[in-house]
Amino acid sequence: MKTEKSELPVVGVDVGGTKIAAGVVDAVGRITGQVKIPTDARNATTILDSIEQAVRASLEAAGLNSSQIKGIGLGIPGVVDPVAGVGMESANLGWHNVPVQALLEERLEVTCYIENDVGAGALGESLYGAGRGFESMVYLSLGTGVAARAIIKGNLYRGTHGVAGEIGHISMGAGDRACRCGGKDCLEAWASGPAIAAQAQEAVQAGKGSLLIELVGTAQEITAETVFEAASKGDRVAFDIVTLAGRNLAQAVFILAALYDTQAVVLGGGLVQGRDELVKAIRAGMEYQLKQSPLFGPVLEGMPVRVSELKNGGPVLGAAAIFNSRTKR
Amino acid sequence: MKTEKSELPVVGVDVGGTKIAAGVVDAVGRITGQVKIPTDARNATTILDSIEQAVRASLEAAGLNSSQIKGIGLGIPGVVDPVAGVGMESANLGWHNVPVQALLEERLEVTCYIENDVGAGALGESLYGAGRGFESMVYLSLGTGVAARAIIKGNLYRGTHGVAGEIGHISMGAGDRACRCGGKDCLEAWASGPAIAAQAQEAVQAGKGSLLIELVGTAQEITAETVFEAASKGDRVAFDIVTLAGRNLAQAVFILAALYDTQAVVLGGGLVQGRDELVKAIRAGMEYQLKQSPLFGPVLEGMPVRVSELKNGGPVLGAAAIFNSRTKR
Repeated sequence: MKTEKSELPVVGVDVGGTKIAAGVVDAVGRITGQVKIPTDARNATTILDSIEQAVRASLEAAGLNSSQIKGIGLGIPGVVDPVAGVGMESANLGWHNVPVQALLEERLEVTCYIENDVGAGALGESLYGAGRGFESMVYLSLGTGVAARAIIKGNLYRGTHGVAGEIGHISMGAGDRACRCGGKDCLEAWASGPAIAAQAQEAVQAGKGSLLIELVGTAQEITAETVFEAASKGDRVAFDIVTLAGRNLAQAVFILAALYDTQAVVLGGGLVQGRDELVKAIRAGMEYQLKQSPLFGPVLEGMPVRVSELKNGGPVLGAAAIFNSRTKR
Repeated sequence: MKTEKSELPVVGVDVGGTKIAAGVVDAVGRITGQVKIPTDARNATTILDSIEQAVRASLEAAGLNSSQIKGIGLGIPGVVDPVAGVGMESANLGWHNVPVQALLEERLEVTCYIENDVGAGALGESLYGAGRGFESMVYLSLGTGVAARAIIKGNLYRGTHGVAGEIGHISMGAGDRACRCGGKDCLEAWASGPAIAAQAQEAVQAGKGSLLIELVGTAQEITAETVFEAASKGDRVAFDIVTLAGRNLAQAVFILAALYDTQAVVLGGGLVQGRDELVKAIRAGMEYQLKQSPLFGPVLEGMPVRVSELKNGGPVLGAAAIFNSRTKR
């Protein structure tokens, strides 16, 4: 008996600037053959080489060949044109206007669909994770960057340029802190992983936060993870940095709630995996925000703010879901 | 020859806390029989009396009876449940959970559909005004309140609770100014009509802004209009208040662009009718914001920010459009 094409699995690929994860995802969201390889990020061709390598390794680990999958879904950082299949801009990958879909389809001889990685994460949480059961939700991704994507009536909301949800570079009114985008006072300048680490490094270099330096060795080794650990052990400097990040992220949650008015918000990304310090700080920040603008109370009381349930598998599931969202009838 | 039901006009009603405007709108958006009467806002029944009176006066002015219209569309301030036809909360009307649709249908014996007034304004601009030709746009209404509504693929985006776009009470990080909502630092605390007037009144009471007081007589008589006039005549205090409002509104435009990523933004409401001081200040604020977060440049360069073209007729056209959006197949 021949398996129906629609029952075949999909390969999901999460393309990052340092690592590429791939896995074979079946119709109910189970992953097999998950692999993770380093990204050779020298140029667009080497990145495509790495993607091809990850897909082939994943298929081999799952004991499948490319005729036994429906196709490939890819989550890609930066600005993506999903219809044309083009990776337009990405600071992490350093590429411009790369026809990712066409080039990968030529290499792998199966249909490939691409999407912004946060959009893929949003769809994954909506279908398989903390967003299950909600017709509409916002996914706020907290990691090297800070960005959101909304799921509206079950579909990813992309906007005109595919950037709808790019909340990372709005001004917070929190001070003059420089952002990697060249601006000042962006949400990412206060609450991204590198920004949390940088604030702690600066504090240590100014002679503050003794526990922070004890946990590592030199200021340069401090990561956001170090800051969360120091905060959990009572370091005041670390606690204040996490509190400030939480307040700014809570303000972001309020803005997302006011503009999208979804049934739920899901927090995801590397900064909420494992340690719960940042989630605690966001919830404390929301209490603070409610005092600033009590009108949001009735809306927020009925809107759960959940933490991603997908952890490491999330981006791969989301990328596979992107493929299915493009082919469903 | 009998006129087809679908070709009949619709009555549009803009319900405000002080005035109710009504007009008969034909299939191509021409208004006849426009009337404006004071709102008897003592309670829900007297408000419904006023609405009924406005509708009957408009029909009479247009020389029609209620069998010669398709139905009535109403734009209502506050939180509205358009499906149930219930006006849920409104600070301006002071009512809670009023079944507006059912009560008006009983009084007027025609189908009535209700919607939030800013949503009606957005649909009106999209169909007949500065938003024509854009599949997606955001309407930012500047008046007694500050709120936005998005049109996505030609439809009003309402969200789960009908509040999607309520940007008036997000924190701006601009200071501790009290808002009428009971909170602090809300967009409305800096940029609504009453907030602009209040800041000028406070300045005059503190002995500043001599031109402001010359234009009226007492501080209490200063309105937002006074502040715009004084600013245009070189009053520094007035100019600074308008500049600050413009900066906060520009930040709001950036947030709307980042989250909805629409093809255009349309500025409407009483504060942009007639005088252009506030629009100038918003455009100056956007230049300032671009320096804060240069990443928005590419998105904003391709996104026109226009001023409402509908002026006084806008809310009535929008309310009529709400009726048609509910009945179109």
